[in-house]
Amino acid sequence: MTAAAAVGPGVQAPEGFSQWVNDATDRFQAVATEMLPSPDDVPQRLHQAMRYAVLGGGKHVRPLLVYAAGEVTAADCEALDRAALAVEYVHAYSLVHDDLPCMDNDILRRGQPTVHVAFDEATAMLAGDALQAEAFKVLADGALPASQTASLMRELAHAAGTEGMCGGQAIDLAAVGHTLALPELERMHRMKTGALLRAAVLMGALSGQAALLTESTREALAHYGDAIGLAFQVVDDVLDVEASTATLGKTAGKDAAQSKPTYVSVMGLEAARALSLRLRAQALDAIASLGPRATRLRDLADLIVCRNH
Amino acid sequence: MTAAAAVGPGVQAPEGFSQWVNDATDRFQAVATEMLPSPDDVPQRLHQAMRYAVLGGGKHVRPLLVYAAGEVTAADCEALDRAALAVEYVHAYSLVHDDLPCMDNDILRRGQPTVHVAFDEATAMLAGDALQAEAFKVLADGALPASQTASLMRELAHAAGTEGMCGGQAIDLAAVGHTLALPELERMHRMKTGALLRAAVLMGALSGQAALLTESTREALAHYGDAIGLAFQVVDDVLDVEASTATLGKTAGKDAAQSKPTYVSVMGLEAARALSLRLRAQALDAIASLGPRATRLRDLADLIVCRNH
Repeated sequence: MTAAAAVGPGVQAPEGFSQWVNDATDRFQAVATEMLPSPDDVPQRLHQAMRYAVLGGGKHVRPLLVYAAGEVTAADCEALDRAALAVEYVHAYSLVHDDLPCMDNDILRRGQPTVHVAFDEATAMLAGDALQAEAFKVLADGALPASQTASLMRELAHAAGTEGMCGGQAIDLAAVGHTLALPELERMHRMKTGALLRAAVLMGALSGQAALLTESTREALAHYGDAIGLAFQVVDDVLDVEASTATLGKTAGKDAAQSKPTYVSVMGLEAARALSLRLRAQALDAIASLGPRATRLRDLADLIVCRNH
Repeated sequence: MTAAAAVGPGVQAPEGFSQWVNDATDRFQAVATEMLPSPDDVPQRLHQAMRYAVLGGGKHVRPLLVYAAGEVTAADCEALDRAALAVEYVHAYSLVHDDLPCMDNDILRRGQPTVHVAFDEATAMLAGDALQAEAFKVLADGALPASQTASLMRELAHAAGTEGMCGGQAIDLAAVGHTLALPELERMHRMKTGALLRAAVLMGALSGQAALLTESTREALAHYGDAIGLAFQVVDDVLDVEASTATLGKTAGKDAAQSKPTYVSVMGLEAARALSLRLRAQALDAIASLGPRATRLRDLADLIVCRNH
């Protein structure tokens, strides 16, 4: 994917940003290729499934947020690499488990067979389990001072657990076939996808110079993360209705087919589109005071809201 | 379970140890009951499944190892509680996932329906996923200095990931129906069960006074953990052949029925029994120099090797 392609027809990507996205994506892909367990080491099949799950494309929104937030606190690239890997491993594991027959039973992801189709169900479950452990390992083995390492791991654990991703997933599971009011839908998405996107922003900033991460900067980034975390899901719901399976790389129209409550089903297509733009404005407002070191975060807010897949 | 019942007919539990086991087990059960997410909070079903998985009995060998190793470094009880919870959460999640239809497809665990039977498959998978995240969270939220917190999380992440539990599980999966030589069998078990038992010992010690955890003490504990970690599995294999389903609380004779390689199938029943006693001796040798502060670890080596379920 190129950044130019990812930004919708109404929005022009700013000069330099497309290149930054391509460079950051390439860097992440190279680092992940290097850091994931080797496909030739025992147990090979597990390692191959983990690599398939992480290296099989995707927009890498979370790593991009980590790298962009790291600019706010002048973080070292090597520290950001580890935070980016950790967040993407957790994201990848959640997709592998979501796609399993006992969950969404999906056979297509990013235009490719899902992990349990390409391998088998047991290997897919184990690969997800192992990726979650590896996420914490890659943080634990980094070179940052222990205080920062512990903060990073704390942020990730809270985002991944019952008050975050897994909790949101459980609410989603219970909601199939039911009507959700808007506040319940928002709560579910803030946990299911928002928490990890917010963690990506905070972990990028936590990887840098502690002196640059004042309490007010941290709060600004948390608000930014909350807003784009929710915006991401609203846009996903809109795209699920608007886009074709070919553009999305996954089965389009699936939410409606599964009677899953979405922003579009609860508030309508136009209102959902308008909400995504309000959330983008909130995200930009939150970091307005951070000046040029938050430029990439601003660009990413546009990329997230104005993408077409 | 009482400690007296757990120690086999040939071995007399030392005075005071049975009481220590009962006290530590009661303490752990009370702490877990308090610290696990409330069954009344959203998402209730997920929280209930997590509690069912952790609070549904079991021998609590890993928490006992944490508490016993904590005596070596004069650790505070509250710090040990968190290390014990973290290790037991990871153990519990692994059992929940192992029991799923795509893995062992087992319907009975500790004499009770497995989590996916009592709840459903999707909830069981999510409960396992959430327990792994909560394991890291309970460490991250503790009151120890960041250097100790980061070390604890590092130990757990390495024990849980591809070089530990998940890796061993993947090797086990690939071995069904195949013949394994003894070195391969040992490697599989050192990863699948040994790594987490070893981590329990080291995490107990890491929770205490850093000054008491010299390099030689750490090495002694690591050797102890390696030996009892393997002994635990050898004894499991022996019990799977010898004991009845009623005593085990899980389906007996399952390994043979599934053509899984075990110590008994590879080396025979008598040789496996003799190996477990040699490993006990190795464990005791490793911590011989630690004096009275390692008394509970010595008692636990006997409990692990001489148990009848």
